[in-house]
Amino acid sequence: MTGNISLAQGREYLAIPGPSVIPDEVLRAMHRAAPNIYSGELIDMMPGLTADLRRMARTEHEVAIYIANGHGAWEAALANTIAPGELVLVPASGRFSHGWSEMARGLGAETQIIDFGKSSPWDMERIAEALRADTAHRIKAVLAVHVDTSSSIRNDVPGLRRLLDELGHPALLMADCIASFGCDMFEMDAWGVDVLVTACQKGLMVPPGVGFVCFNDRAAAKRATMPRVSWYWDWVPRGNPDEFFQYFGGTAPTHHLYGLRAALDLIHAEGIEHVWARHARLARAIWAACEIWAEGGDLALNVADPAYRSHAVTALRLDSGKGTALRQWTEQRLGLTLGIGLGMAAPGDPARDSFFRLGHMGHLSGQMVMGLLGGIQAGLSALDVPYGKGALDAAAQVIAS
Amino acid sequence: MTGNISLAQGREYLAIPGPSVIPDEVLRAMHRAAPNIYSGELIDMMPGLTADLRRMARTEHEVAIYIANGHGAWEAALANTIAPGELVLVPASGRFSHGWSEMARGLGAETQIIDFGKSSPWDMERIAEALRADTAHRIKAVLAVHVDTSSSIRNDVPGLRRLLDELGHPALLMADCIASFGCDMFEMDAWGVDVLVTACQKGLMVPPGVGFVCFNDRAAAKRATMPRVSWYWDWVPRGNPDEFFQYFGGTAPTHHLYGLRAALDLIHAEGIEHVWARHARLARAIWAACEIWAEGGDLALNVADPAYRSHAVTALRLDSGKGTALRQWTEQRLGLTLGIGLGMAAPGDPARDSFFRLGHMGHLSGQMVMGLLGGIQAGLSALDVPYGKGALDAAAQVIAS
Amino acid sequence: MTGNISLAQGREYLAIPGPSVIPDEVLRAMHRAAPNIYSGELIDMMPGLTADLRRMARTEHEVAIYIANGHGAWEAALANTIAPGELVLVPASGRFSHGWSEMARGLGAETQIIDFGKSSPWDMERIAEALRADTAHRIKAVLAVHVDTSSSIRNDVPGLRRLLDELGHPALLMADCIASFGCDMFEMDAWGVDVLVTACQKGLMVPPGVGFVCFNDRAAAKRATMPRVSWYWDWVPRGNPDEFFQYFGGTAPTHHLYGLRAALDLIHAEGIEHVWARHARLARAIWAACEIWAEGGDLALNVADPAYRSHAVTALRLDSGKGTALRQWTEQRLGLTLGIGLGMAAPGDPARDSFFRLGHMGHLSGQMVMGLLGGIQAGLSALDVPYGKGALDAAAQVIAS
Amino acid sequence: MTGNISLAQGREYLAIPGPSVIPDEVLRAMHRAAPNIYSGELIDMMPGLTADLRRMARTEHEVAIYIANGHGAWEAALANTIAPGELVLVPASGRFSHGWSEMARGLGAETQIIDFGKSSPWDMERIAEALRADTAHRIKAVLAVHVDTSSSIRNDVPGLRRLLDELGHPALLMADCIASFGCDMFEMDAWGVDVLVTACQKGLMVPPGVGFVCFNDRAAAKRATMPRVSWYWDWVPRGNPDEFFQYFGGTAPTHHLYGLRAALDLIHAEGIEHVWARHARLARAIWAACEIWAEGGDLALNVADPAYRSHAVTALRLDSGKGTALRQWTEQRLGLTLGIGLGMAAPGDPARDSFFRLGHMGHLSGQMVMGLLGGIQAGLSALDVPYGKGALDAAAQVIAS
Repeated sequence: MTGNISLAQGREYLAIPGPSVIPDEVLRAMHRAAPNIYSGELIDMMPGLTADLRRMARTEHEVAIYIANGHGAWEAALANTIAPGELVLVPASGRFSHGWSEMARGLGAETQIIDFGKSSPWDMERIAEALRADTAHRIKAVLAVHVDTSSSIRNDVPGLRRLLDELGHPALLMADCIASFGCDMFEMDAWGVDVLVTACQKGLMVPPGVGFVCFNDRAAAKRATMPRVSWYWDWVPRGNPDEFFQYFGGTAPTHHLYGLRAALDLIHAEGIEHVWARHARLARAIWAACEIWAEGGDLALNVADPAYRSHAVTALRLDSGKGTALRQWTEQRLGLTLGIGLGMAAPGDPARDSFFRLGHMGHLSGQMVMGLLGGIQAGLSALDVPYGKGALDAAAQVIAS
Repeated sequence: MTGNISLAQGREYLAIPGPSVIPDEVLRAMHRAAPNIYSGELIDMMPGLTADLRRMARTEHEVAIYIANGHGAWEAALANTIAPGELVLVPASGRFSHGWSEMARGLGAETQIIDFGKSSPWDMERIAEALRADTAHRIKAVLAVHVDTSSSIRNDVPGLRRLLDELGHPALLMADCIASFGCDMFEMDAWGVDVLVTACQKGLMVPPGVGFVCFNDRAAAKRATMPRVSWYWDWVPRGNPDEFFQYFGGTAPTHHLYGLRAALDLIHAEGIEHVWARHARLARAIWAACEIWAEGGDLALNVADPAYRSHAVTALRLDSGKGTALRQWTEQRLGLTLGIGLGMAAPGDPARDSFFRLGHMGHLSGQMVMGLLGGIQAGLSALDVPYGKGALDAAAQVIAS
Repeated sequence: MTGNISLAQGREYLAIPGPSVIPDEVLRAMHRAAPNIYSGELIDMMPGLTADLRRMARTEHEVAIYIANGHGAWEAALANTIAPGELVLVPASGRFSHGWSEMARGLGAETQIIDFGKSSPWDMERIAEALRADTAHRIKAVLAVHVDTSSSIRNDVPGLRRLLDELGHPALLMADCIASFGCDMFEMDAWGVDVLVTACQKGLMVPPGVGFVCFNDRAAAKRATMPRVSWYWDWVPRGNPDEFFQYFGGTAPTHHLYGLRAALDLIHAEGIEHVWARHARLARAIWAACEIWAEGGDLALNVADPAYRSHAVTALRLDSGKGTALRQWTEQRLGLTLGIGLGMAAPGDPARDSFFRLGHMGHLSGQMVMGLLGGIQAGLSALDVPYGKGALDAAAQVIAS
Repeated sequence: MTGNISLAQGREYLAIPGPSVIPDEVLRAMHRAAPNIYSGELIDMMPGLTADLRRMARTEHEVAIYIANGHGAWEAALANTIAPGELVLVPASGRFSHGWSEMARGLGAETQIIDFGKSSPWDMERIAEALRADTAHRIKAVLAVHVDTSSSIRNDVPGLRRLLDELGHPALLMADCIASFGCDMFEMDAWGVDVLVTACQKGLMVPPGVGFVCFNDRAAAKRATMPRVSWYWDWVPRGNPDEFFQYFGGTAPTHHLYGLRAALDLIHAEGIEHVWARHARLARAIWAACEIWAEGGDLALNVADPAYRSHAVTALRLDSGKGTALRQWTEQRLGLTLGIGLGMAAPGDPARDSFFRLGHMGHLSGQMVMGLLGGIQAGLSALDVPYGKGALDAAAQVIAS
């Protein structure tokens, strides 16, 4: 009865980079009979809901809600702005930039990708080159992944806006905030972002199923020139509906709306700036531990410079190749599920087993982070991974400070 | 304390034609922490889930799942089969046929609508004429709404297949089963339906948010000829995914999958043929009451011939114009919400207040139907609507038999 | 696929006289993590909770909460007031009066029972005789069951108080309101009731598990003379606790308290007088149907005089002996569960199968009552029980009026 | 936005010694409509439920279920075995031993308390003296608190049985396992325990509201000699009911029974011996951290010898008096609620603020323990409490091993 007993029987902790831990308030709000969708509470709830989404996105412009995941919201953003044959520029620092490019091509667009690899943020100079070279302004939009969930790189979106402005390039600035919304600071209007794409299952703490596209007047003007936008993706009626069903292009996602309401209440009760500050602090605690573990020579953070690290997800590797073993150990022995590495090595490459990720987004307290880090360190010990000592003390110190 | 007291304080009953009453088992299954989406239970659940969906659709062919409402599933079905400039034939017997047509046009298709009005099923002869006239086989698909939720007409889908076969017309037969799935008998393969479109919030008894498209080899062959299918709507990877995320073109609708699993368990435990028989019997009870009420001269069923009536929704009108008043009375006084009329009169037309609908789909027992009918009759009395006597007795008799 | 199909697949309806139908709000409030029991929300909730319980009981005196069912609350009331060897008078009009007597004897009391049988309310004259004969005032309390759940008789509690006053008899008036609380009008202080006993699973709409004893100064004075009251039943610290745990004599019933809070919110939002009026109206609808069914010669209401009928439970019989068959038919075929007869015939007596009861308490709307009655009538038809026609119309008419 | 931000917005962690963290499976099982209490599923569930409770208690004898908290179960055990005027011996090592004594006196018993203070386990020699002195066998039972939740001392129950046997003393051995049930090894039959008292809200992981008394033939024989046992506490019908309601002396605790079923399924799926081993390992991890923190000179474990420490609760103190401040810091800043000290200092004594307790019972994983300890260390740092370094590493090492 020693040695191999499981210590996993308890509240499980899903520390993957989305879906995130869902607050009880959200689940409770979704446990209800279906409401009327023609009049009453749900209909009355909508103006407040869209106002609170805009408030969270720091925009005074429009929001369109889609029953879809983040990929659907990507497609929606493109379908309203990029016509077949038009060109988009994609500075890529992780797998998801390539995914969004693929969707653009699926709609008939051309894509020009500047690939910064899997561990580096955008190099503004190379982006500038590409924009300068586009004297004909064929590039209609820059697809900017704010935080790439695979690499955990956070890119400099306001810097990109400054660049576009300096160069006088009219391309739309479209930002994927799926992994950063409600985690990392993001200011749509102040930063001059034209289109913001996000979804509900990460910082918004709601089960997957709803995506969002915010768009400003410049984006709306581009929409007006489109030869055709499919009925489901068209953001015009969704942003300014005459009737309730138009918000959703058909039947409303009734239960998700109740969940969203509860989640937005939590977020605005805390205050979005406090939410950002909490994520920043907890990310620092995680980095503090990781950097000390890294002194052992096996573990490494994917992103070297803290200025470019996401506050919501951290990509790591164990050069010994024990990443997969670590995930399995913490899941089976402690009920702690870490995220797999994504897009860091090709299928079949033995290095695939090196990578893993930590999700630290949304409903996340200091106590949960200490449980996450403590669980990982137990796993490192159990698997004889060499690691620097004092990592947990360092993390606790950040939390205490 | 008499006269105007409310009798609504109790379990509310939403008797609109979707979303329908959600079983406790489904809500309970959805009240859970987010699961891992890279390995484990959810991933292992998928083969059984798609098999059970196919079993319910009576098909051995493929099913693609979309995070979307029924409108999204409509668009998905079209996006995989109809290229811009191609023609579809739409025999219309209610508002939703026109809605699907609109989506086809939004994708660049041409539509040829044969409008049978709001109270009549398809006239096969007129459809035959149109098909015979299409000697060039420009018509690539017939968009067949099995049950139109607005008019409550149920059309003869197998008859349409026989017609296509007799005429040797190669158009795909695409059926919208959103309002009939899990309520009215439907046999995709036996009836020669090429594409079936449905969604989760009616007979499937799950909160809105997921749609389905089943497609057979003929439809897959047409897909293979398409110049372009957008990434999100493409059914190829969804129907035959190599990796879990491909089922959903991105993040899985985690909680809906648990809900679906619970709902399919209920349906298959009862047996789909028993489910159909239950709906048929309960629809007969409702019609029995309505036909007797109609003897009073005010209330009328929208569909005269029972052979063309949906088993899941019943459209009615009160010629006195008291339909809206009835709905308000039952909702406010009894906690019983009836459906509004949809598409039966233009905005501003005072006749709009005549129409209403009953949803009787999914999680529905004989006791619930008697509560529905008893509540309506109380409302008719309260509003001084003349109605034939003995309607409730007649309904109870059908339930007893 | 005809004849024997089940029409039970839908929302089940438990129409037994307790536990009653639980509102979603209550279940949702109970679906939560355990709270701190030493400080915070739960502790802060208590003053409002006890105030609202007192408000519902129409008393300004004390309330003691017990983790216990109604039987436990019975024992608590007796344990605080009746010493071994003391005498209580029990006017009995149903099984539960005998049950409470039995508990009194279990505590060492003597009981003097006046048995009015199973279908008659108290005969005040016979009670007066007993009280007059007690010139030594050996009777320390009258145990008055307000509504006996077995017989569905509602007795005249204020009349009993008048009698005691007229006769100048000092016995405590102790009322069992378990089946009537939140259903039938009850005015503890205005009616001069000294001790009120109730529980949470009927009109209070909360899962069974908590009982209540309200007591006034006269009862408290009797308590002060008791030679010994067991620690768990002692109402002194519960009624006036210095510390939170004293409310419950130990660990608090955390989740029930959240459920109670939600239930009291519903009750006070409606208004207790409206709650009573709703029950009265719905009871009249049920009686209207039953009285017409009774014209068929088989079905009979247990209580002849409406003035003595409970508004929360109705005891019935089918002289053909088909009561049990009816319950089984409605449960298996319609998902409608009726209550068994209780204490109306001895075990082994074939008449036992004649009796059944309807619970109509708490979370109950007009639509639910029509479903209940419609389901019963379908059962009567299916079982070839002769019954008067027009019963459902009559009930709907009461609801409409 | 730095310094004082809260890191508490996340899943809260209630680490008090009961109620404990409730598994989602249990809450989900309790979120349901009330069931029939006269036939069907609930009734059919009971034999398995009592069998599984007995299995968990390691007894083949009877179990009586009470709707009550642990104090109610204490009273029940006494009410069935100890008549007024009889004597019980109480070896006390914490507040709860005194509480149980008080209940015995409330039932008219005499109590002989041997007080071992608040930090020491039983001294068998002193108990032996008392038993030897009782040559007349006036002592009818020894009230043995296995684990005292206030002091976190675990006493040697099998040693006490050996002592009774050696001395040939016939007193019943009655054990309070409220804090140890499902946490610390306990073998009712093998250890010769006559009466076991426990409740549902700690190791059993169910919301408070149900208590249990297991009793063997010796205890049943004593019950048979009792002059009177009150109806509600009488264990005879509860242990061997003829009818369902007798299990509970009235209305069943319907929802708790579903919760219990789910909890017992979890426990027996893991295996009770594995459950004990998990608690033992996690307790060792907690002690490892505490012992290193203690090197700083402020924090101290209440129980010096690990052999007498509970595996479910740990009582601690901060000699600086910062215990209360620590609890407040972790609750407000991290969402981590620690238990207050109980019974360790008199009201008004400033030392009261020194004490606190950790609950580590029931639904508890290695990851949760690391979160608990990490949160505490952050608090110690924030409050400038001196503590030994490396405590978290040590705990992780125990978990890893």
